[in-house]
Amino acid sequence: MPISPKAVVLLSGGLDSTTVLAIARSRGFVACALSFRYGQRHIIEIDSARRVAHAFGVQDHVVAEIDLRVFGGSSLTTEAEVPKDRPASEMSRGIPSTYVPARNTIFLSFALGYAEVLGASDIFIGVNALDYSGYPDCRPEYIDAFERMANLATKAGVEGTARTKIHAPLSHMTKADIVRAGTALGVDYSITSSCYDPGADGRPCLRCDSCRLRAKGFRDAGLKDPLLERFEAP
Amino acid sequence: MPISPKAVVLLSGGLDSTTVLAIARSRGFVACALSFRYGQRHIIEIDSARRVAHAFGVQDHVVAEIDLRVFGGSSLTTEAEVPKDRPASEMSRGIPSTYVPARNTIFLSFALGYAEVLGASDIFIGVNALDYSGYPDCRPEYIDAFERMANLATKAGVEGTARTKIHAPLSHMTKADIVRAGTALGVDYSITSSCYDPGADGRPCLRCDSCRLRAKGFRDAGLKDPLLERFEAP
Repeated sequence: MPISPKAVVLLSGGLDSTTVLAIARSRGFVACALSFRYGQRHIIEIDSARRVAHAFGVQDHVVAEIDLRVFGGSSLTTEAEVPKDRPASEMSRGIPSTYVPARNTIFLSFALGYAEVLGASDIFIGVNALDYSGYPDCRPEYIDAFERMANLATKAGVEGTARTKIHAPLSHMTKADIVRAGTALGVDYSITSSCYDPGADGRPCLRCDSCRLRAKGFRDAGLKDPLLERFEAP
Repeated sequence: MPISPKAVVLLSGGLDSTTVLAIARSRGFVACALSFRYGQRHIIEIDSARRVAHAFGVQDHVVAEIDLRVFGGSSLTTEAEVPKDRPASEMSRGIPSTYVPARNTIFLSFALGYAEVLGASDIFIGVNALDYSGYPDCRPEYIDAFERMANLATKAGVEGTARTKIHAPLSHMTKADIVRAGTALGVDYSITSSCYDPGADGRPCLRCDSCRLRAKGFRDAGLKDPLLERFEAP
């Protein structure tokens, strides 16, 4: 039997990255998960990432410490207020204050280093070009450009022994498609966390862009969000 | 008088990045320096970076903490031995163990985030394609690919308000060219530090690739290295 190839999966513990982990596994990869403490106010997502990594039995889970607060510039890493109750029409226009400068570029760069050390050529990221809240570094043309750069950055790329592939399997999926795909793969969404501004117990605010996109995804898929059931229990 | 544009300068405190800082200033940029504690064994280079930033009166100097040791993979960040006394013919062949996976990609990604927060479009990096010890992420085609990716990653790139430019002014210079250029710009190389394996007092080992390339640069330029004079003093 051939040995399964390793893949690095960027895992925030949210709905998207958890679905991506399930997809990577369904495609025959042995997943090594990579999460970040980057000074995010919703640090509780690291707990979700650990729960998800454990539930999936990943081969390795690295939590890298990088302090993106040194630069400021985002409501996700500063004391600025997370926008709430924005209608969908506004979410799809412009780039919101929750955008963290160069975050996906930094995350993918670390994934590239981790993959190189593991001898892995495959990196999975849960970016999504449809319900993407207007972040520039979630678009397919950005992912393609990162992949081209990556293949000029690494030993294996230079020596021609392997080609790095950035997989963004959610790129062209709606949130409802993602929820359906993950559900079909057996993902337990009750252990994931999407909220930008959760309570201390992990209770989602239900009002930030991320909560609203998640709710819409489950609604459009005709499914109940098991995370909400966790908090509705008497 | 027009306001001078800001530029982010990646500053390790070594010969190359210090020369780049001098070049950025000579081109009319207000420099904001960015250095990293990344788990390097030659952590003393942070002291050099601080000395250099101070000597140049940079507008801001951010030292970001990122632990690249979580992945291992390089003799610069692990207990593995730094190669010593390698002849030039060997240095120019293959990729040595001092290569840190994806290091320049990670550094440039942080620079991109910092630049975005500053509203700067210019990033300077001291990579060098000739005397480059065989690192893949020092080649001009890699820098070009990073720049293309960067312009798809940022708000300004997407909104078309500014184009990010990665300046690698040392790309096609020999070490001797670099020493000459910096000397002409008044750089005091006695406060810089290049060694991969220095003593506790900062004394260079004179045997690692970096020390040997530096020595060759000064020799070929027909100049004395003032750093050595610091340690030769009675």
